[in-house]
Amino acid sequence: MLSKLSTLAILAGAFSAVSAQTFQRLGTCPDLGCILPPDQQDFLPGQQFDIRFEVHAPKNGSETYNSGVPDEKFTVTIAKEGGAAKSLTSFFNTAEPALEKWTFSWYEDLFAQDAKNASVVNVASKIYRRVALYEPGNYVVTLSAYNGAKVTKATWTVRPLAAAKKAKNVILFIGDGMTTNMITAARLLSHKMVNGKYQSLLQLDKFPVIGHQMSHSIDSFITDSANSASALYSGHKSTVNAMGVYADSSPDLFDDPKVETIVELLKRIWGSAWGAVSTAFLADATPIALTAHTRSRYAYGPLIDQALHGVTNYSWTNHGGPDAYFGGGAEQFLPGATSYQGKDYYAAFAKAGYTVSLNKTSLAQASNSSRALGVFCKSNLPVWLDRNVFPENLKSNTNDPAGNKSAATDLPGLKEMTLKAIDVLHQRGGDKGFFLMSEAASIDKQMHVLDYDRALGDLLELDDAVQATIAKLKALGELENTLIIVTADHGHGFDVFGNADTKYMAAQATDRKKRAAVGTYANSGLSEYTIEVPGVSYGTGANFPMNWDPRYVIAAGMGANPDHRENYRVKKDGPRTPATASGGASDDYYVNPADNRDGFVVNGTIPTSESQGVHSLTDVPVYALGPCQGEFGGTYSNIDVFYKIAECLGLGHGTNKTVGCSK
Amino acid sequence: MLSKLSTLAILAGAFSAVSAQTFQRLGTCPDLGCILPPDQQDFLPGQQFDIRFEVHAPKNGSETYNSGVPDEKFTVTIAKEGGAAKSLTSFFNTAEPALEKWTFSWYEDLFAQDAKNASVVNVASKIYRRVALYEPGNYVVTLSAYNGAKVTKATWTVRPLAAAKKAKNVILFIGDGMTTNMITAARLLSHKMVNGKYQSLLQLDKFPVIGHQMSHSIDSFITDSANSASALYSGHKSTVNAMGVYADSSPDLFDDPKVETIVELLKRIWGSAWGAVSTAFLADATPIALTAHTRSRYAYGPLIDQALHGVTNYSWTNHGGPDAYFGGGAEQFLPGATSYQGKDYYAAFAKAGYTVSLNKTSLAQASNSSRALGVFCKSNLPVWLDRNVFPENLKSNTNDPAGNKSAATDLPGLKEMTLKAIDVLHQRGGDKGFFLMSEAASIDKQMHVLDYDRALGDLLELDDAVQATIAKLKALGELENTLIIVTADHGHGFDVFGNADTKYMAAQATDRKKRAAVGTYANSGLSEYTIEVPGVSYGTGANFPMNWDPRYVIAAGMGANPDHRENYRVKKDGPRTPATASGGASDDYYVNPADNRDGFVVNGTIPTSESQGVHSLTDVPVYALGPCQGEFGGTYSNIDVFYKIAECLGLGHGTNKTVGCSK
Repeated sequence: MLSKLSTLAILAGAFSAVSAQTFQRLGTCPDLGCILPPDQQDFLPGQQFDIRFEVHAPKNGSETYNSGVPDEKFTVTIAKEGGAAKSLTSFFNTAEPALEKWTFSWYEDLFAQDAKNASVVNVASKIYRRVALYEPGNYVVTLSAYNGAKVTKATWTVRPLAAAKKAKNVILFIGDGMTTNMITAARLLSHKMVNGKYQSLLQLDKFPVIGHQMSHSIDSFITDSANSASALYSGHKSTVNAMGVYADSSPDLFDDPKVETIVELLKRIWGSAWGAVSTAFLADATPIALTAHTRSRYAYGPLIDQALHGVTNYSWTNHGGPDAYFGGGAEQFLPGATSYQGKDYYAAFAKAGYTVSLNKTSLAQASNSSRALGVFCKSNLPVWLDRNVFPENLKSNTNDPAGNKSAATDLPGLKEMTLKAIDVLHQRGGDKGFFLMSEAASIDKQMHVLDYDRALGDLLELDDAVQATIAKLKALGELENTLIIVTADHGHGFDVFGNADTKYMAAQATDRKKRAAVGTYANSGLSEYTIEVPGVSYGTGANFPMNWDPRYVIAAGMGANPDHRENYRVKKDGPRTPATASGGASDDYYVNPADNRDGFVVNGTIPTSESQGVHSLTDVPVYALGPCQGEFGGTYSNIDVFYKIAECLGLGHGTNKTVGCSK
Repeated sequence: MLSKLSTLAILAGAFSAVSAQTFQRLGTCPDLGCILPPDQQDFLPGQQFDIRFEVHAPKNGSETYNSGVPDEKFTVTIAKEGGAAKSLTSFFNTAEPALEKWTFSWYEDLFAQDAKNASVVNVASKIYRRVALYEPGNYVVTLSAYNGAKVTKATWTVRPLAAAKKAKNVILFIGDGMTTNMITAARLLSHKMVNGKYQSLLQLDKFPVIGHQMSHSIDSFITDSANSASALYSGHKSTVNAMGVYADSSPDLFDDPKVETIVELLKRIWGSAWGAVSTAFLADATPIALTAHTRSRYAYGPLIDQALHGVTNYSWTNHGGPDAYFGGGAEQFLPGATSYQGKDYYAAFAKAGYTVSLNKTSLAQASNSSRALGVFCKSNLPVWLDRNVFPENLKSNTNDPAGNKSAATDLPGLKEMTLKAIDVLHQRGGDKGFFLMSEAASIDKQMHVLDYDRALGDLLELDDAVQATIAKLKALGELENTLIIVTADHGHGFDVFGNADTKYMAAQATDRKKRAAVGTYANSGLSEYTIEVPGVSYGTGANFPMNWDPRYVIAAGMGANPDHRENYRVKKDGPRTPATASGGASDDYYVNPADNRDGFVVNGTIPTSESQGVHSLTDVPVYALGPCQGEFGGTYSNIDVFYKIAECLGLGHGTNKTVGCSK
């Protein structure tokens, strides 16, 4: 999750310059001619997409060209490898698009930003909409401008046909920000170990196949949840903040060149059912990227409209709306300033035939034969730890989804939402099966605020949901028909490095002496979280810790933090705020004086304008079970998760196969 | 790698108390009766081992019992599941061992340590040596003391028979401390990415099967390289610092109950050849654990004797000595204070028929038909970065293996040592094949000193060695006969979280302003390490960075550090020393004032007595290629790496099969 940025800052952050700096003019466009999708992209055969060309003429700065006058008479061609180059209008049998023009600014580096010395770029552009490539193989797209002085080429690869449907259903679980390191820690907290042998294991530990996927974005090696979700859902990486499009440089957030997503493909080709479940607000990146086509993940209102109605500003595949859609984020459903055009989206969904549930009780009672919407609170769902271990913390919330300012307390968890979604999708999908995405969103959100207990609690909730899902599928007779994938969108650099004697730490007077409480190597000892304490019972069952507040806790952290104080103890009164802005400045963060008072200060390693931890580079794990599971072993890119699922669902066609909803 | 500890501290650190504290009386013995191997251990059928029983009588402290008088008349039995309990003498047809008695002390927690309030424990013990279990299934061992007032049980599992040899050769590569996170970073530094697509990949990325293994020790969730190596080599976890034994509480470092290692098993059962290669000193944990049986990894001299002669203080399987043995650590070979009994081990190995090489040139000329020793320097080999990119740094060393104080400069790398070892083992093993362990030791050692560049350089050297190994095996016609495993022993909590504009950082006056140089998310940009710079050429080839010192570097780190300063730049004048002891105190560490002068301070999270980073919890990756590769997918314990390799080599026998050397 990113803090909000002004439009100019979004532009400055999103565009790349020639040699990989803090800022880039346009990440996918190192030269002055831009082809989007750019060089080296892969496509599913038959996947619909847009193609935008831009010619940049910087007016000032290090790349000044042609007095800032872009060539409006640029030409573009496409050639299948070994074939003749053709104009795009001829190749795709489409009309010549109108010429577009605009201007943008950016800072070439941090010195320029400090000096407010912006580089201005004038642009000429055309966009060809809703095309597709049906034959596997390589294609070369050429943009020629300034009478051949600037020639840009892009090589695209259309992957092999995959037209046979091998799995009836696919369930894709996403642990947002979840790494192998965190899974290891979650196991330590919740499963008893005797002399090195675990007496029980996570459900994830029982998956037969593991792979690793590379999460980097198209133009930055650290990604966000928006474009990494898009990579998983479409096979196309993009720029941070973008979903379902390649980010262009125009001011309009919704005109960027699009790519079809997995739910759009699945609906069009097979007419299957689809759904999404998340512990985040439904407009948040991971759930919304199934249907979103925008450069900005922050356009929440319009994105919920897109989730129901599909793309409305251009001709495009209509995914038909989800069959099951459960999560938080009442702000985009209640009529008012934060919903699209101020409209009532509870009413809009109801009018489209959805049952609408606002709490766990009504969710359980909703019919399985109707499409189902469930919005259980404003913003993100409270985390598992507060719902199950410290429920007093829920009472002070003002997040009731009906919009009165009371607390939402009858909340479903990830397990209840996922199982109900399966019931609805199984019934509505029938023989055509279904696709379900289920996200444990607050692993990431809690890692951002350095609340390791809450993050790991939500990871354990994900594992519990996976276990319950397998049991349900077995009971429905669908386990052998269902490909189950569990993965992450990106990482956080978290790991456990010892234990902390909280009693000893609290008794020390100085920071340096407090650090002696941390036991490393042999002194890390064993997990006290799995030891039953008389009088302590959360009622959370065998897959969760017995005690969240033992004397000896895990000492953990990451390399990327704001200033903060650590005592490693669970925060009993709600999620953590590690850093707060000092005095008047709203973006100058220091240790929060109210947080972990008896701990020791750890100063930060990231800009002081950042109040939270940030994402990390690491490849993340992929667990697979079911039809096609063997395809998921080894190391690959996040886009390959899409291609492997698409191959298993038979979505790679050599013709424009359309059976489901379309415009 | 651990700093040295006094004997008492070793004891205090190694033993556990009842509920998983900083210190434990004896980690595997929460009660007052101890069975070693303890409850929940697994065994290979036919694997030879010792069994020690201890009865503890604490004289003071929280566990005071029987006035500190241990019951000398304790009884012990063993029963196969479903069978009658028998005395051990009867079950194993062995003589009753002598009674042993001793005393030890420990601190029950940090408060007790501060107060120097030691708890004293008197012990009575017996040890049954060199037994084996041949029938798969469960066994229950019972220790009864104090007339039945203290009964301790251990359930052991003997795994299924695995008597067929499926792979002719096994090569086990160990990246010490190497995690998925580091592999991801190493790829970023060395392989070009265009619009999100890597143009080339690591060799590790091409392995068809990935697994995850859990690295925790038997009594602490953070491990060290000694007992984690033992787990990989024997299927038995142990206590930090111990190798090839279960750590007991006696003062003798070499009397602890042993377990047969993979090279002892392989030699005894099949008579194959075996070898070890490491960039560490040969007496260091990872190489030496192949042959070591001791509670203390620091007994370097005796351990090198054990590597040549096998265990000499008890009757035990003789592994026959390595056929190829290459690394650093001349200190244990030159006659003097640091070799066993002051003897000349170059001479001892030569007398046993080994060729002895002291540099790269002579290694290349060594015969492939004789056993071969190569010792290339004192202590650890200089790292890849200094050998290949900053070779001036080698000149000031005084590490020549011949013992004069000149610099060792004609140094082989991991690749040369591994390829030569394969040549020797392939020839000497003949039809019986071979086992080779090859370790990239300084991934870990450099992560300990927060020198991320040097650590990643050694990781890239490992990948290069794996690539060259596959090519060599192909050329020898042995690729299909060889199971290749690449894994780690444990992790460090490292990850990359952005880039750092080194020019901007150097120009800022305060720490808080310097942190603004770190670019996160979209501002992380692209890798400059793969961009050719005119005039800069290291001659290191396609698998390594083009430029180690670009303007925009990776910003990386971990959660567990001493105080240090970061500017993220490569250290051109040799490996890093992040923290130094201040003033008179030898174990009170602060930021090293000479390190990263233009960076910002990051204070530490571990005790101020620690000068380096420490290990972390995370599961680590396992890559497998060759016969039995499919067995390595999924999640499992580090001991399972041993069982899977042992099964592939047919080492699980229902009889005492002995063809190779034995005593």
